[in-house]
Amino acid sequence: MSVSPAVSSPQFISAPALLSDWQGHRRLTRRVIEAFPEDKLFTFSLGSMRPFATMVSELIGIAEPMVRGIVTTEWKRLEEPPSTTKADLLRKWDDTTTALDQLWDQIPADRFQESMTAFGQYPGKVHELILYAIDNEIHHRGQGFVYLRALGIEPPAFYTRD
Amino acid sequence: MSVSPAVSSPQFISAPALLSDWQGHRRLTRRVIEAFPEDKLFTFSLGSMRPFATMVSELIGIAEPMVRGIVTTEWKRLEEPPSTTKADLLRKWDDTTTALDQLWDQIPADRFQESMTAFGQYPGKVHELILYAIDNEIHHRGQGFVYLRALGIEPPAFYTRD
Repeated sequence: MSVSPAVSSPQFISAPALLSDWQGHRRLTRRVIEAFPEDKLFTFSLGSMRPFATMVSELIGIAEPMVRGIVTTEWKRLEEPPSTTKADLLRKWDDTTTALDQLWDQIPADRFQESMTAFGQYPGKVHELILYAIDNEIHHRGQGFVYLRALGIEPPAFYTRD
Repeated sequence: MSVSPAVSSPQFISAPALLSDWQGHRRLTRRVIEAFPEDKLFTFSLGSMRPFATMVSELIGIAEPMVRGIVTTEWKRLEEPPSTTKADLLRKWDDTTTALDQLWDQIPADRFQESMTAFGQYPGKVHELILYAIDNEIHHRGQGFVYLRALGIEPPAFYTRD
């Protein structure tokens, strides 16, 4: 971990506001999980891609372990097996939501501008690592929208974040 | 436009770093446009959704007009008709890329924390408005990935941003 030069540039967004934005995204992603019929969540796919549940398990495997690593500087991957029911997937989703709120305030103020290597593999500024996790969620959720449309199900509105 | 309380919270990301992140996303999105065969770009869809070219025209209609409005406080939508060829779509994409670089430095440093109503319709903090534009790009690009996979075409890697 190295410390970047002093931040003199204008702030784009503060750490609390970014968490709030992320949690808004997470509420929307939760609605997308809920919108899938139980069986389709684990089986439906297009273009030989993964089912949406598998993508969501990936997101769960990134979010909390990433932020925990940023707090503790110790990188541990999730040990739990992936969910096999919608209820269990939603439970893990909600556990992550709670954990993110608790971990966020423990991130030292300067850390967001520092460089770290996530999971011993992915180097970057801490804000880049976190944006990557959020962007990956938006990316796969957009794919979930296509799955829902192809199943004849109206997805929740993209701008709904409450 | 109203000014928010003084920013005392830790910075998550600076304005120049956020632009750099966005331009990285834009390079990836450009690759996704390029990956489509000319005809499929304008005609292929799944689940009665829009073709990818139509989504990209939406993104072009948001990015530069949004940032120009943030700079000037005047909100004007694009007047140009949507592109009908891949070359024209890419030309508009590249024009937007250049315009964003030029406009970004003209955004007053405090403005990112202020509230504005984009296009007279969408109220929010300026950083929220900009994140919305980026998130919407990631969302639709993720859908473009599904279209490409369904067409038997390997999309560019999500993490490639150079």
